[in-house]
Amino acid sequence: MTSRVAVIGAGPSGLSQLHAFEEARKKGAEVPELVCFEKQSDWGGLWNYSWRTGLDEFGEPAHGSMYRFLWSNGPKECLEFADYTFEEHFGKAIPSFPPREVLADYILGRAKKNDVRRFIRFSTAVRWVSYDPATEQFTVTVEDLTGNETRREVFDHVIVATGHFSVPNVPHYEGFESFPGRILHSHDFRDAREFAGQDVLVMGSSYSAEDLALQSKKYGAKSVTISYRTAPMDFKWPQGIDEVPQLVKLDGDVAHFKDGSTRRIDSIVLCTGYKHHFPFVADELRLRTKNVLYPANLYKGVFWLDNPKLMYLGMQDQFYTMTLFDAEAWYARDHVLGRVSLPSREEMSADIDKWVERESTLTDDAGMIDFQADHVAELLADVDYPKFDLDLTRKLFRDWEHDKQESITGYRDRGFPSPCTGTEAPIHHTPWWEAMDDSLETFLNTPKQS
Amino acid sequence: MTSRVAVIGAGPSGLSQLHAFEEARKKGAEVPELVCFEKQSDWGGLWNYSWRTGLDEFGEPAHGSMYRFLWSNGPKECLEFADYTFEEHFGKAIPSFPPREVLADYILGRAKKNDVRRFIRFSTAVRWVSYDPATEQFTVTVEDLTGNETRREVFDHVIVATGHFSVPNVPHYEGFESFPGRILHSHDFRDAREFAGQDVLVMGSSYSAEDLALQSKKYGAKSVTISYRTAPMDFKWPQGIDEVPQLVKLDGDVAHFKDGSTRRIDSIVLCTGYKHHFPFVADELRLRTKNVLYPANLYKGVFWLDNPKLMYLGMQDQFYTMTLFDAEAWYARDHVLGRVSLPSREEMSADIDKWVERESTLTDDAGMIDFQADHVAELLADVDYPKFDLDLTRKLFRDWEHDKQESITGYRDRGFPSPCTGTEAPIHHTPWWEAMDDSLETFLNTPKQS
Repeated sequence: MTSRVAVIGAGPSGLSQLHAFEEARKKGAEVPELVCFEKQSDWGGLWNYSWRTGLDEFGEPAHGSMYRFLWSNGPKECLEFADYTFEEHFGKAIPSFPPREVLADYILGRAKKNDVRRFIRFSTAVRWVSYDPATEQFTVTVEDLTGNETRREVFDHVIVATGHFSVPNVPHYEGFESFPGRILHSHDFRDAREFAGQDVLVMGSSYSAEDLALQSKKYGAKSVTISYRTAPMDFKWPQGIDEVPQLVKLDGDVAHFKDGSTRRIDSIVLCTGYKHHFPFVADELRLRTKNVLYPANLYKGVFWLDNPKLMYLGMQDQFYTMTLFDAEAWYARDHVLGRVSLPSREEMSADIDKWVERESTLTDDAGMIDFQADHVAELLADVDYPKFDLDLTRKLFRDWEHDKQESITGYRDRGFPSPCTGTEAPIHHTPWWEAMDDSLETFLNTPKQS
Repeated sequence: MTSRVAVIGAGPSGLSQLHAFEEARKKGAEVPELVCFEKQSDWGGLWNYSWRTGLDEFGEPAHGSMYRFLWSNGPKECLEFADYTFEEHFGKAIPSFPPREVLADYILGRAKKNDVRRFIRFSTAVRWVSYDPATEQFTVTVEDLTGNETRREVFDHVIVATGHFSVPNVPHYEGFESFPGRILHSHDFRDAREFAGQDVLVMGSSYSAEDLALQSKKYGAKSVTISYRTAPMDFKWPQGIDEVPQLVKLDGDVAHFKDGSTRRIDSIVLCTGYKHHFPFVADELRLRTKNVLYPANLYKGVFWLDNPKLMYLGMQDQFYTMTLFDAEAWYARDHVLGRVSLPSREEMSADIDKWVERESTLTDDAGMIDFQADHVAELLADVDYPKFDLDLTRKLFRDWEHDKQESITGYRDRGFPSPCTGTEAPIHHTPWWEAMDDSLETFLNTPKQS
């Protein structure tokens, strides 16, 4: 009987997995039967923009955290597919910080080229994954949301690729119950223009807080106050944005902060992170972790220590995204195909401990970037993923971090060389802070003078 | 071995169920072991106001659809507990249309009096309910959300009391993707003051649309446009609210309607109803129905036709609420206790058909009110629920409908007699349209002259 592999999720990491198998098949390998279950009605995961918030058309938690006018906040060169470059997809070199639609087009471009859509069952939610030691197989209970029918299928391997930026972590503060404006998590942020003319409070100090503060100001907020818990981001913010210490409470529409200052606020955006949330996985198989570079219990960052036939993709905090997903997907594939063999449980556990221990010593972004680059390098060393200049991406990340310190509104106005083709990216025709139109068409074409 | 009953949900209908058993126990009956699973961390169901929208603190769909400043839209006399009157709870007669906090206090007051909280396991989500014909028992899989642990328990009866106003029905219209303002379902509406100064589009023509249009205007919206699909509500709206035909599309922030008219809009509130959604119930036990007065497959509106050991409470479209829940809960209890016996499947099916057929002939609210009153009366005829004047409530409902036609902003400024005590309700000290403070304290006490 053919072996069967379930891939849960058809976002970037799930698509990397389907693609990895397809590449092996094209080169003559015998691959197992693949079934990818996707809750949404289309592919692309987070890159699939939806206006919906809260619950989706089926009453399921809306997956999307994507908002209008999002532009990549890192150089695209650090997430380039080595087997499908930006130049191949767009037929020319493009600038380094593309907007959402352009990145989505690229990610799906490779998926379309290999026609992996045929493996995906859309509008299908996975309800439960369990393992039977007697049969050494997984039972996956799924619900067809269009027909409202539940069924069980048996698999030899299960690969969880559902992401970890979909289930918001939402803290409570005194006075939220009676605040007269909107309180939303960044997960539900869709269009910055909703906040035009408002005094906005953004809570957090990571990427979401940084970007939604800038977005809100760029599209017309009167003021943006960023409240941090431990330390400010301390960028050179444009006029109208500043940072204050932690929120203590709200009194009506007045926010009180730890330094004793107060501000009147119209809306509150909680950029307080996401949960790793796998309610559909049986307890003994369920990954429970914070957002770290090396979750414990995952050998090579992928294999469930107690049962490596279960794999998780992309569950790390990420500098590398698509590159990491590809490296993990190739390794997962080769494990399924029997091309790589995993060591004993003890050795795997010791190896995880080594990485976890190293992560605990990291103190700055440069160290974290190197950590994740080393992780990627270790995975790639054992698989046939096309070669590219991974060391160049370390340098690009460091340059990018430096650029952000120089100018938080201007760092996207720069081009980087591709680690796959060596081509230097052109500079985008419009400075990001002035670019209000994020469409693919406008990005790819120099606009006519008006 | 003691028989075990699972009650799913500790909102009004679940609390009615626990209370019904407790009343029997106090009178000497031997009652089964009761376990009530509640997803939220507190009781009261929808009446438990939460500022949260989308997903809750555990990453589960937020149950709440309750908003600030909600006042009962029907006379409280038509939902009075016959065994725990408003006068008993508040120590005096109170006006007929109380705000949320007052009704919540009343509902929970009876639950506290009988201390049914001891049966409830909070922060516990039911993941799956299945039935084994061999053992004739149900297996209920639950997750303790605080400990993130899953376990299975076996029950002889299961009573689903999770409500049907928590999972929004959210249609899509052309242009929603690029609308620059907020689009929300009434499920996520929390505070009308968010929309002060705005031009608001409310879509729908039922209770939510009626109330949220009025709320928004009352708390400062510049204008409210209500868009109906089939027919307008046609109340005598206050200045600044009016009704237009169905939305065709949005073009940026401009809404185009079926009559060719257009309006610029800041926010869109979808009052497009809710889904009966029971993803945690095995297919063959799962109620699938629209919002009707008599869902097919439920004998007496309660008993799952194919397996009456499974019961559903309050799954009807509702004129009567607490009264209906009590009647159903008493009947469900007496079935479990063996005090009432159900006829053959054929007879039950024929009885359901009779009601469903009758519902299909109804053409106006008066007919629907009588239909549901007859349903309640039939249930009460067989159980020991305290007597009250059900026929009076039919009249109150008709008067209320008439009052709404007379004045949609003024119908709450009236008092009705109690069907339990006969006492006439006093008139509230402040006309509803001018009452901006909905606190229990202000409602119960005549405010001092300022």
